[in-house]
Amino acid sequence: MPYGYNGKILRVDLTSGTVTVEEPGEIVYRTYLGGGGLASYYLLRELKPGIDPLSADNILVFASSVISGAPIAGMVRYTVAAKSPLTGAYGEAEAGGFWGPELKFSGFDAVIINGKAEKPSYLWINDGKVEIRSAEKIWGLETGPAQQMIRDELNEKRARVALIGPAGENLVRYACVVNELKHINGRTGMGAVMGSKNLKAVAVRGTKKMDIHDPEKFRELSRNLTELIGRHGPNKMYRKLGTSQFIMPLNTQGILPTRNFRTGFFEGAEKISGERMAETILKGEEGCYACSVRCKRVVEIPSGPYATSGHYGGPEYETLSSLGSLLCIDDLAAISKGHELCNRYTLDTISTGVAIGFAMECCEKGILTEADTEGVEFKFGNPEAMLKGIEWIAFRKQGLGNLLADGVKAAAAKLGQGSEKFALHIKGQELPMHDPRGKTGQGLSFAVSPTGADHLRAPHDTPFQVPGPNLGRIAPLGILEPVDGREMGARKARNFTYLHFIWSLYESLGVCNFVAGPVLALTLPKLVEVVQAVTGWETSLWELMKVGERAVTMARVFNLREGFGRRDDTLPDRLFEPLESGALQGIGIDRREFEDLLTLYYEAMGWDPRDGVPTRGKLAELNLFWLDGFLKNHRPGQDLF
Amino acid sequence: MPYGYNGKILRVDLTSGTVTVEEPGEIVYRTYLGGGGLASYYLLRELKPGIDPLSADNILVFASSVISGAPIAGMVRYTVAAKSPLTGAYGEAEAGGFWGPELKFSGFDAVIINGKAEKPSYLWINDGKVEIRSAEKIWGLETGPAQQMIRDELNEKRARVALIGPAGENLVRYACVVNELKHINGRTGMGAVMGSKNLKAVAVRGTKKMDIHDPEKFRELSRNLTELIGRHGPNKMYRKLGTSQFIMPLNTQGILPTRNFRTGFFEGAEKISGERMAETILKGEEGCYACSVRCKRVVEIPSGPYATSGHYGGPEYETLSSLGSLLCIDDLAAISKGHELCNRYTLDTISTGVAIGFAMECCEKGILTEADTEGVEFKFGNPEAMLKGIEWIAFRKQGLGNLLADGVKAAAAKLGQGSEKFALHIKGQELPMHDPRGKTGQGLSFAVSPTGADHLRAPHDTPFQVPGPNLGRIAPLGILEPVDGREMGARKARNFTYLHFIWSLYESLGVCNFVAGPVLALTLPKLVEVVQAVTGWETSLWELMKVGERAVTMARVFNLREGFGRRDDTLPDRLFEPLESGALQGIGIDRREFEDLLTLYYEAMGWDPRDGVPTRGKLAELNLFWLDGFLKNHRPGQDLF
Repeated sequence: MPYGYNGKILRVDLTSGTVTVEEPGEIVYRTYLGGGGLASYYLLRELKPGIDPLSADNILVFASSVISGAPIAGMVRYTVAAKSPLTGAYGEAEAGGFWGPELKFSGFDAVIINGKAEKPSYLWINDGKVEIRSAEKIWGLETGPAQQMIRDELNEKRARVALIGPAGENLVRYACVVNELKHINGRTGMGAVMGSKNLKAVAVRGTKKMDIHDPEKFRELSRNLTELIGRHGPNKMYRKLGTSQFIMPLNTQGILPTRNFRTGFFEGAEKISGERMAETILKGEEGCYACSVRCKRVVEIPSGPYATSGHYGGPEYETLSSLGSLLCIDDLAAISKGHELCNRYTLDTISTGVAIGFAMECCEKGILTEADTEGVEFKFGNPEAMLKGIEWIAFRKQGLGNLLADGVKAAAAKLGQGSEKFALHIKGQELPMHDPRGKTGQGLSFAVSPTGADHLRAPHDTPFQVPGPNLGRIAPLGILEPVDGREMGARKARNFTYLHFIWSLYESLGVCNFVAGPVLALTLPKLVEVVQAVTGWETSLWELMKVGERAVTMARVFNLREGFGRRDDTLPDRLFEPLESGALQGIGIDRREFEDLLTLYYEAMGWDPRDGVPTRGKLAELNLFWLDGFLKNHRPGQDLF
Repeated sequence: MPYGYNGKILRVDLTSGTVTVEEPGEIVYRTYLGGGGLASYYLLRELKPGIDPLSADNILVFASSVISGAPIAGMVRYTVAAKSPLTGAYGEAEAGGFWGPELKFSGFDAVIINGKAEKPSYLWINDGKVEIRSAEKIWGLETGPAQQMIRDELNEKRARVALIGPAGENLVRYACVVNELKHINGRTGMGAVMGSKNLKAVAVRGTKKMDIHDPEKFRELSRNLTELIGRHGPNKMYRKLGTSQFIMPLNTQGILPTRNFRTGFFEGAEKISGERMAETILKGEEGCYACSVRCKRVVEIPSGPYATSGHYGGPEYETLSSLGSLLCIDDLAAISKGHELCNRYTLDTISTGVAIGFAMECCEKGILTEADTEGVEFKFGNPEAMLKGIEWIAFRKQGLGNLLADGVKAAAAKLGQGSEKFALHIKGQELPMHDPRGKTGQGLSFAVSPTGADHLRAPHDTPFQVPGPNLGRIAPLGILEPVDGREMGARKARNFTYLHFIWSLYESLGVCNFVAGPVLALTLPKLVEVVQAVTGWETSLWELMKVGERAVTMARVFNLREGFGRRDDTLPDRLFEPLESGALQGIGIDRREFEDLLTLYYEAMGWDPRDGVPTRGKLAELNLFWLDGFLKNHRPGQDLF
């Protein structure tokens, strides 16, 4: 070990039932770090382009990171990645909680799963020992009972279980993976990939302590961060209100997605706000391993039609909006119930909400009728429709449920009749609850995200996050002047590109942007120190930013191989249309400005602006020249000599 | 000041005799830092393309940096920049010594000089006060007497004087600028630009102390660096032998330029080596402001035909080779005399040696005859020819002197008869004493350097610098695996590109690569800490690397405006031919591999591989979109929509 870090990768072939362990060596770890970076590395090397994502040919990667497991706030997120059954493109989703660190304690940095089990199975990783066990008795159970049965069967209460419920088993294309019943790898249908492999769960337990290179320095960094989190205003807001804090300001700014993105102003916003939640159903807050931010909500509704137990966490901002404002539903209890159902069944709440919104708009326009909705009134504002929708989707109920379970892109393609206009998706993945008409960097982010519309592939450039003293936190990137949320052009392209690398780095390191976002406690130079203290590498923000850029480029190459190109990096028509009401009433995105921004981004990335293919020189610069062979077909006539 | 640094720029218009002061603001300083970065910024904004470099239209910039003047080893270099009269391209040269810090102490970060004085003049900058004074009595003097007369006249022994001798006055196109008679801004003919402006000298004196943001942290960094220099092997070698240490290993490796680059092995190498110098004429070592490396040689030869005084320093490696091995001269005393003459007259020793080598080879081939050389035998190995050549060039002696004073490119164009093959230059600037046949990154560096062949635009990738434990020092760049000196292709392109940014950063910060080169004492993370302690900016290696990349790109844009393109980024034919003897006998550079390396580099830079024009997106990414207008003519048909 010339620098200081090494780790192990667990390989599981579900078809043959074999398990092996390999050590890729320190240079692989330092080059890709973990999470999205490490997952893309393996997927690009091993996954054949063109395969069916729900076949045994797909490869499912669970990846922690080189720093995950070290006891410090906000660095525990782990990645689940595979070819996405929702988009047919690169699939990746992160979750916090305790599962990622536990995998490290069990002796592994990542698990790579090939093939398909003959019968329902789950994986048990216990301090370096690995078993593929039968899940036949557990199959069909909701997440809560399933987790309980696994723990009972293993006689290990402390087993951390990442698993799927009925939606994953039923191959709903946006089924998620959940750990501790409330920490979610939400997007791109990774739960369906588990289901397709007959894999109900991956349970882990470990007692191996993290090997920290400079324990004293690390303890100091960790202590300082915890102390800072305790007194840093924006971090205190995360503790007080969680992400639900954003409902009110976004509504005021006119970009709270409402009525299937027709407007950004919701009259009932206050009723579903974080403030209202705190006054009513909130029972406490929770956090992830070693984290003092404690942004997670615990809610409880003891009785009534929307009674919820509190075991499945509370709704995040995304859910409050996707099952709330987007559908014009202002009943916080109903939303919380919808949230719980999604977690029981492992449905991604964003895609689920957008799918239901699509159905509501189709009903409004007469494309769907009461015959299709079995008498339930699928109209905006009706909580019953939302709850029935969730049920029907999770179990692929014949008709509407089955239609929506494949995502709005596929649904609209089946329905036709102009319903495509109401299908709010990019590359087949449903839009998160952020309106690019008020934050154009988010629009670019949605458009170029390799996973389709995804709010965690790059930061939101909401106006309140950029100017003022916050700029100091991104100044180490060389971003010294504020850029407005609605600005387009060169400055926006630059800011987006750099922050994009940082976000991509976070997804590789497992860093949570609720400790390290542009306004939050952890500065970028401190993050470099953390990586250094844990691994022993004398690293730099340059090296780490390049890991971020590398991961973005690898995902791009993955998608190029699958046939995606510039034409897919766009926004739904609706976002080019004016908002119907609110602070930004009348505002839509200018198509020409958007295309110019996209070109600037491609060029800033070293990608051919015609099709987004990374140049050979850019691959060389990123130490990714091994990918050049994959792109040969994408370079017609590029040999200049 | 939102972050912490500010400074002043002095503007002098020699035509009108006016002097003004301006404060560009902190964002300009943080974006460009100083030196080459700051100089290119002003030249691009203010210098009209197509002007005659020796006319009043040229703009001459003297630029220190934001950290120069802070008492720490190896951070004092300052830049002189203008359009080059040697190449017609971007001109820039750095020097150490004491002048740069003194400029800071006098209250200025940079001096921008426009126009042309009616009569010989010099500039006197004294603690914020500025005078344009007559140099009529000083004009014509060699550097030693001129410096003395200026100090006497100002009654200020401690004035630091950057000045020119007869070669600058006579507009020799590779005349240099010298301070303290021995610290040289050598390349690209900045001395001729001074001469063309009737500017004999810029004398500075200052007593203003540097305002250091975190004095305690800075003192600790400075103390640690000095201590490390004292015990770090490679740094101790710099003290012991200076750059002359390289004569023997390069000869052994077969890449000591000899006989006008026909071979890389010189039989007389030992006689001109650093070891021999130490045993014979060496009287001591010297250093620059606050620096404990003390790489500078003091030599003295008390009597004989080659008597030298010791006031003009001792020959560096470049001079030992350019006036020695290149010309097959193995007489250390004669070389030292040649060195002294060059410093008296302000001739760049590299260009001078290559010009004389060109003449020698032309004589060998009968293109020049004894009639042209006035009876002096211009053959390889003859010290008299070398010394006469220096004299004739400096005074533009009618005939050969005047011919060579315009550089080998112009000389060969005049002579014709195939003499172009013996003119070792790139873009009109003569080759430094490094043979790319044994270090291909150096070849790429020479080819793409905006200043023409220049060994200080990027590091030498000599084999002994890259592998082994040294790799740890460049690991913070993400370079984790050794790359051989003779390797071509993707890995070489990557290494070169990154180290290139670092070197460019050094030229903007005034950092000497004898403290901060890949094997030397100062690590990159420590350099970041130094910038932070001095300026108060919470910066990062990312931000600093981007300053380096930005400066490279600005110089590229400067040259594109002047009509340079891909065809100019090449090597002299000789380097594609095999070496005649030595360890690399028979080795030449492969043209196709070279062109591929060039393409990879362009693409890694975000430049169009056809012509090297930076894409709009790359300009945006580097915060250089203000340059896009200059490149409009270079983007035919690039509007894609």
